[in-house]
Amino acid sequence: MDLKSAIRDVPDFPIKGIIFKDITTLLKNHEAFKETLDLLYDFSKNKGITKVVGIESRGFIFGGALAYKLNAGFVPIRKPGKLPSETLNESYELEYGTDSIEIHKDGVGAGDKVLLHDDLLATGGTMEAACKLIEKAGAEVSQISFLIELKFLNGRKKLNGYEIKSIIEY
Amino acid sequence: MDLKSAIRDVPDFPIKGIIFKDITTLLKNHEAFKETLDLLYDFSKNKGITKVVGIESRGFIFGGALAYKLNAGFVPIRKPGKLPSETLNESYELEYGTDSIEIHKDGVGAGDKVLLHDDLLATGGTMEAACKLIEKAGAEVSQISFLIELKFLNGRKKLNGYEIKSIIEY
Repeated sequence: MDLKSAIRDVPDFPIKGIIFKDITTLLKNHEAFKETLDLLYDFSKNKGITKVVGIESRGFIFGGALAYKLNAGFVPIRKPGKLPSETLNESYELEYGTDSIEIHKDGVGAGDKVLLHDDLLATGGTMEAACKLIEKAGAEVSQISFLIELKFLNGRKKLNGYEIKSIIEY
Repeated sequence: MDLKSAIRDVPDFPIKGIIFKDITTLLKNHEAFKETLDLLYDFSKNKGITKVVGIESRGFIFGGALAYKLNAGFVPIRKPGKLPSETLNESYELEYGTDSIEIHKDGVGAGDKVLLHDDLLATGGTMEAACKLIEKAGAEVSQISFLIELKFLNGRKKLNGYEIKSIIEY
């Protein structure tokens, strides 16, 4: 099916002038949901992935399902202060100021082959920081997948050298 | 396997005196992850579930995977201001003050049989509010599932009349 047609444009969210790509209309359509996950799975099967790392919070939705299908563990990357045990932290730049994300120190480690997953590739800042977290923890970033890629923002430039897949491109 | 042994106790999180049940040690263990999801699936298969509704953000991890396995759509319930389109809102009481959650108005509707899923049943306030959201939207709450239930907090009292399953009980 045409997965792009299942995405809804919401004007002026979260701020005036932005057209937000709303994935909830795809998620609630069981055929679109299934087809999307099957495509993400096809990209990552037979790659020896040991951990799927999803980025809070929309990256958890397909991330958990991918972990199950790949017979891998699931590890969350979250906003600061959300993970209860010892964490690694990585900052990244926003248009104004900075933000940061965290992973448990023992979430991934040496020998892990990691699939990183998030719903959206925009400028790539968050995913670049996520790659640094995985590598700081001693694991390997094997693949990166997204539901949506906003190609005009050139996010892939920040993710040079990684194997990347996005299901829907704008 | 003994799934309870895969849960980690973290003392003094999020505040002093609380022993936090950390599910990330279960999630990252691929065998524990798979067995947990298979148990959640067994509870909900053959029930005609059309939508799995997961509560932000840990409810998304198994929620998405359940939607896939049940061949249902996935619908997120989120904290206020996160969903881009028109929402329904429901408040619930905390120890001090109140909080609220939201669902898209068009997320579920008449004819939908909903499985609600979250990681933790504590006092039941959040899940009670989630049930009200589903019913406000005109859909039916068919089942509710949790990864962990803190039985000594009597959360099920707030969810009387619903079919409920929790995988690990304390």
